[in-house]
Amino acid sequence: MAQPRILVINPNSTEAVTRAVDEALSCYADDAQIRCVTLKEGPPGIELQQHADSVIVPLGQLLKREEGNHDAFVLACYSDPGLHSLREQTKKPVLGIGECGLLTAMTMGHRVGVIAILRKSIPRHLRYIGAMGIGSRLAGERALEIGVVGLQDAQRTAQRMVEIGRQLRDDDGADVVVLGCAGMAAYREGLQQELGVPVVDPTQAAVGMAIARVRLGW
Amino acid sequence: MAQPRILVINPNSTEAVTRAVDEALSCYADDAQIRCVTLKEGPPGIELQQHADSVIVPLGQLLKREEGNHDAFVLACYSDPGLHSLREQTKKPVLGIGECGLLTAMTMGHRVGVIAILRKSIPRHLRYIGAMGIGSRLAGERALEIGVVGLQDAQRTAQRMVEIGRQLRDDDGADVVVLGCAGMAAYREGLQQELGVPVVDPTQAAVGMAIARVRLGW
Amino acid sequence: MAQPRILVINPNSTEAVTRAVDEALSCYADDAQIRCVTLKEGPPGIELQQHADSVIVPLGQLLKREEGNHDAFVLACYSDPGLHSLREQTKKPVLGIGECGLLTAMTMGHRVGVIAILRKSIPRHLRYIGAMGIGSRLAGERALEIGVVGLQDAQRTAQRMVEIGRQLRDDDGADVVVLGCAGMAAYREGLQQELGVPVVDPTQAAVGMAIARVRLGW
Amino acid sequence: MAQPRILVINPNSTEAVTRAVDEALSCYADDAQIRCVTLKEGPPGIELQQHADSVIVPLGQLLKREEGNHDAFVLACYSDPGLHSLREQTKKPVLGIGECGLLTAMTMGHRVGVIAILRKSIPRHLRYIGAMGIGSRLAGERALEIGVVGLQDAQRTAQRMVEIGRQLRDDDGADVVVLGCAGMAAYREGLQQELGVPVVDPTQAAVGMAIARVRLGW
Amino acid sequence: MAQPRILVINPNSTEAVTRAVDEALSCYADDAQIRCVTLKEGPPGIELQQHADSVIVPLGQLLKREEGNHDAFVLACYSDPGLHSLREQTKKPVLGIGECGLLTAMTMGHRVGVIAILRKSIPRHLRYIGAMGIGSRLAGERALEIGVVGLQDAQRTAQRMVEIGRQLRDDDGADVVVLGCAGMAAYREGLQQELGVPVVDPTQAAVGMAIARVRLGW
Amino acid sequence: MAQPRILVINPNSTEAVTRAVDEALSCYADDAQIRCVTLKEGPPGIELQQHADSVIVPLGQLLKREEGNHDAFVLACYSDPGLHSLREQTKKPVLGIGECGLLTAMTMGHRVGVIAILRKSIPRHLRYIGAMGIGSRLAGERALEIGVVGLQDAQRTAQRMVEIGRQLRDDDGADVVVLGCAGMAAYREGLQQELGVPVVDPTQAAVGMAIARVRLGW
Repeated sequence: MAQPRILVINPNSTEAVTRAVDEALSCYADDAQIRCVTLKEGPPGIELQQHADSVIVPLGQLLKREEGNHDAFVLACYSDPGLHSLREQTKKPVLGIGECGLLTAMTMGHRVGVIAILRKSIPRHLRYIGAMGIGSRLAGERALEIGVVGLQDAQRTAQRMVEIGRQLRDDDGADVVVLGCAGMAAYREGLQQELGVPVVDPTQAAVGMAIARVRLGW
Repeated sequence: MAQPRILVINPNSTEAVTRAVDEALSCYADDAQIRCVTLKEGPPGIELQQHADSVIVPLGQLLKREEGNHDAFVLACYSDPGLHSLREQTKKPVLGIGECGLLTAMTMGHRVGVIAILRKSIPRHLRYIGAMGIGSRLAGERALEIGVVGLQDAQRTAQRMVEIGRQLRDDDGADVVVLGCAGMAAYREGLQQELGVPVVDPTQAAVGMAIARVRLGW
Repeated sequence: MAQPRILVINPNSTEAVTRAVDEALSCYADDAQIRCVTLKEGPPGIELQQHADSVIVPLGQLLKREEGNHDAFVLACYSDPGLHSLREQTKKPVLGIGECGLLTAMTMGHRVGVIAILRKSIPRHLRYIGAMGIGSRLAGERALEIGVVGLQDAQRTAQRMVEIGRQLRDDDGADVVVLGCAGMAAYREGLQQELGVPVVDPTQAAVGMAIARVRLGW
Repeated sequence: MAQPRILVINPNSTEAVTRAVDEALSCYADDAQIRCVTLKEGPPGIELQQHADSVIVPLGQLLKREEGNHDAFVLACYSDPGLHSLREQTKKPVLGIGECGLLTAMTMGHRVGVIAILRKSIPRHLRYIGAMGIGSRLAGERALEIGVVGLQDAQRTAQRMVEIGRQLRDDDGADVVVLGCAGMAAYREGLQQELGVPVVDPTQAAVGMAIARVRLGW
Repeated sequence: MAQPRILVINPNSTEAVTRAVDEALSCYADDAQIRCVTLKEGPPGIELQQHADSVIVPLGQLLKREEGNHDAFVLACYSDPGLHSLREQTKKPVLGIGECGLLTAMTMGHRVGVIAILRKSIPRHLRYIGAMGIGSRLAGERALEIGVVGLQDAQRTAQRMVEIGRQLRDDDGADVVVLGCAGMAAYREGLQQELGVPVVDPTQAAVGMAIARVRLGW
Repeated sequence: MAQPRILVINPNSTEAVTRAVDEALSCYADDAQIRCVTLKEGPPGIELQQHADSVIVPLGQLLKREEGNHDAFVLACYSDPGLHSLREQTKKPVLGIGECGLLTAMTMGHRVGVIAILRKSIPRHLRYIGAMGIGSRLAGERALEIGVVGLQDAQRTAQRMVEIGRQLRDDDGADVVVLGCAGMAAYREGLQQELGVPVVDPTQAAVGMAIARVRLGW
C-alpha cells in the first residue's frame, strides 16, 4: 500500500512555527509522507477570534488546490479554525489539533490541563471545549502570558511551562497536560519529565489519527 | 435621551429576508432607530458552515464602516456567524439572534424546541448550543426540510411549521419554541396559537436585548 | 404606541433598596413607565430560603391587585422568589432579576462570576443555577460577607466588591461579573472600571428584557 | 434505644392520600414510630407551582409545633415543597420524597423513568431535577394525564401506569421507575411485575432514609 | 417481622478496618442483624484500580456462599468494587458505600467534598462520580496523603482530616463532606464539629439504605 | 525505525471473534506488527458486567507475560474491561476499543449512535460513557437483540444493523455510528453505504491510535 500523504497546514504565516511542527512529526517518517505548509495569507499568530476566523476562507482555497495531492489534512492551530467548513468541502479526513489533542489526552489521564500562550485565548478555547461536550474532563486552562519576546527565549519558556504545568497539576488536579498551541513539541518531553504526568503535543496526536483514518479509508 | 441606533445585519444576500426582518421589528418603532441591511457579499442563504464562515470577514468590514453611526449591532442569522470576532472589534454591543433567541426562550419555558430549515444545519446548531453550555435546556431541534420552493409557499411553510412544532411539543416535550432562522417572524403568532406554547422570533428577541444594552451603556 | 408599564417589585421591605432600584432604572425613562414598589409583607432582606419562600404568597396577592395596571412584572430579588408561581398566575411577562442577570451576562463573557452578599446564600443560588441548566457557564460565586453595618458604608462595600471581583476574575477565571443582589447598581460602573470586565446589574438587565417582551406582545 | 419518631407530612389536604401514605409505611412498623399527618391548610392536590409554594409557610408552622415530638420529618409530596426552608428551621433531618425517591432509584437502575400525574407538572419536576444535578440519569418523565375521576378508578389507573411505564422502559430506556406522586404505593408491586424493572415508591424510600438518619444522629 | 440480616463485606483483608466498620454500625443494633466480614482474598487496602478489580471475583464467590443467609449486602469500600457484577448475581439488594455515601450527602448539602486517603485514588473516584452522573454536585476531592504510618496515628489523622476538610469547605465551597474510605467513622463526629458542616460516613449511610430496602422488599 | 508491535487482546474465548478482529486490521499491514490473541480464560462473550469483571485478572496476567514483546496493547472488547488496571501495570500504551471508538467518532460527526448486540449491555455502556464525560455527544444506543443464532446469519445481522442504524440516524439524530462490539468490522462498509453516515469499527480506531502512541513514545 502507498503511504498516506498528509498535508499539515499551519494557518499562521510564521515559518518558524511550520518548521517546528515539521520537526515534531519526524517520528512518523516511516509511516507517512507528511508535508507541512504555511498559510501565507494568515496572520503571524492566531491570538484572537478574528485571527482564527480570518483564515477560514484562505484555508478553503488552499484545500481546494491541494485536495487531489493528499489523503488527509491536519489543521495545525489549537483553535481548529474552519475545521467544520473544511470537512464540508472534502470527503477526505480533516482533523484539527485542538480536537485530537484533547481527545488523545482523554486516553492518558482523567483530568486534562491545557497550557495556553495567552489568557485572552482561554474563553475561545472554552467555547470550543463546550461545543465538543467534554467540559467535565477539563481540569483547567492556564496561560504562559509571556509575550512574543518571552517565547523566543526557549529557557524562559520552558521554565514558565513548568510553572504553569505545576499549577494545573497541583491546584487544578490535572493528570495529563495538553500544549494548547502548535509548534511547542520541543518542550514536551522536558515538561513531562518535570511534571511526572503525560504531556500531549496536539499536532503529533492529530497526525497519528490522520494516518489511521487514511489506512482505514474512512 | 437620543434613541438607540441599532444596525441589524442580514448576513445573507437575500433582500427578501432583510425586508421580513425589518417588518418584524416595527414593534420597536417608538423605542429605537433600527436599520436593517443586507450583506451583499453573503451567499443567498446560510445553509452550511462554509456559508457561515465565509461572511465573517465581510461582516467585519461592514462593522468597521458602520460602527460610528450606530450604538449596537445585531447579527440576523440563527448561526451567529462571526459573533465573537465582531465583539473583539468594537466596544459597542454586538448580539446574535441565535444566542438571544435561545436565552430569551429560557425565560418562557423550561424545554426549548428549535425549528430549523434544514436537517444538515442541526449539527452546526448543536455545536453552538454546546458552546453556550445550555444543552440540558434543549428539548430537541427538528427541520422543516422543505427546500427553497417550499419556503416560498407561505401556506405550506406555515403548515409544516405546525407539524414540526407539534413533534417538538409532543414527542420532545418542548414548552417553548424558537424559530431557528431569521425572517420567519410572520409565522410566529399563528404557530403560537396552533401550538399553545410561546414561540420566539430570535431577531425580535435580540433587538430587544440590544436596545436595553444601549440604554444601560454596557 | 403607549409606553410599556413595568412594575418592579422589591420583595423585601427595605425602602432604601426599592429607591436604589428605582434610581438604577432611570436610564429607561424614555422607554417605559417604570414603577418600583416595596412588598411591605417582606422581611428586611432575603437572606435565607425561608425568607424567599415566605414572600411568595404576598407577591401573588400583590400581582393580583396590580395585574390590570401594568404590562410586565419584574421580581427585584436575585433569588427570584415565586417566579414560576407568578408566571402561572398571569399571561403577562414576569421576569426575575436572577434569571435575566445571568442570561444577559452570558452574552457579555464566557465565564460568569457572581458576587453574593452572604456566603449562606450561595447554595440556594447554586440550586437555582442548576435548575436553569447553566452551571457550566459559572466561573464561581463569592460573598462579600460584610454584614449590614458594612453594607451601609459605601466605600467599604465598594472596596470589598473590588476584592471579591478580582478573586472571581483571577482565581476563578470570570470574564463577566453579575451583582448577585438588587439595589447595588450604584457600584456597577466603578467596579467595572476596576476589574476591566463587564459588570451586570441584574435589575437593569431584567427591566430591559421586560420592555422588549411588552413590545413584542409575548 | 428508643425507636425513631418520624413525622410524615402530606402537604395537600386530601385525607385519602395521607391514609394511603400511612398504609404504605406499615413495613416500618417494627423500626419506627411513624405518624402521618395532613396539612389542613394545603390545597386538595399539589398540581401547580402555586400550590407547592402556598404550603411552605404553613409547613413551617406545622414543623414548629411538632419539632419537639419527632426525630425526623418527611415531606410526602414529590415536588418537595419548602424542603430547604424547613431544613433551615431545624437541626433534625428533613427529607423530601422527590429527592429520596430519585436518589434511591439511582441505586437500582441507571436510567430513571418518572410517572407524573399531570403533564403540566413536568417542567416543575425538571427544574428540580436540574437543581439536584442528576439530569443525565433521567430517562424521561411522562404523565398519566387521566384527571381526578380517572384516578379514583383504581383499575384504570393501574392500566394507565402500565402503559406509561412501558413507554418509559421501551421508548425512553428506563431501567427503574419512580412513582412521581405520594400515595400511589398500592400500585407499586403490580406495576413492577408488569414492567420487569424496579419501581420505587418515593415515600417509602424517604422514610427509610429518615430512619437511618435518626439512628446515625446526623 | 424478622430483623433484616445485612452482610457488610470489607473487600480488603485488614481486620482492623472490618472491626472499625462493625463498631460504626452499632447504632443499628436494634434495627438489624449486621454481620461484618473480611474478604480474606483481598489486598491489605484498595489503593489502585488493580486492587479494586482483583477483588471482584472473590466477592462474587463470597456472595454465592452467603446469599441464602442474608437479606442484603453492603460493599464496604468507597470504590464499590464489583457493585454491578454482584447486582447481576442476586435479586437481593446490594449497595455500595461510595454510591450511598455520596447520594446521602446530596440530601445534606449542595456541594459535596470528599476526603480521600491517597491522591492516586482520585481519578478512579472521579470516573465513578462521572458514571453516576453527579459530577456537578462535587465541590472537590482532596487526599490526606499521609501513608500507612500516618494513618495509624489517630491524632495526626484527625488533624489532617480537619486540614483537608477546611480546604474543601473554604477553597472548594463544600457544605457537606464524605469520608472517602471505609473504617473512618470514628473521626466523623469530631470532624463535623470542627468544620461546622455535616460529615457522612459512607458505610453508615449504606447500611441505613440497605435496611430500608429489605423492609420494602425491593 | 522498527515497526510498532501491537498486541490486540480479545478478552472473550471465541476464536472466531479474534479472527474477525485480525482481518479487520489488515489495513495496517505496512505500518505495524499486529498480533491478535484470544484470552483463553475468558467467557464465550462479554455480555454481563460479571463477564467483563471476570477477565480483568487474567488480562493482567497475559499483559505480564507479553509486556516485554510488544510496544502497545489494545483491549478488543467494547466494554474496555480492566482498562485502568492494565494502565497501572505498564508504562506502555494500553488502549480500549470502546474509548477509542467513541473518541474517534467524535471527530467524524456531532451526535454518536451506538449499535449494541444486547439491550442488557446498554446500562453498562452508559455508565462508561458517563465516566468518560461524553454523554452529551451520545445520540443514543440501541441493540440488535438477535441472539447468538441470529448473529451467525450474516445476512440477517447486516439487515438488522441497517434497521437499528436507521433508527439511530432518523429517530435519535445520530450523524456517526459506532459498532458497539469487537469483530463486526466486516459489516462496517455496507452499513455505512446504507446509512450515508460514517460508521466506526472501534478496533480499527483503537489500533490506529495505538500505532501513533508508539511512534510518539508516549
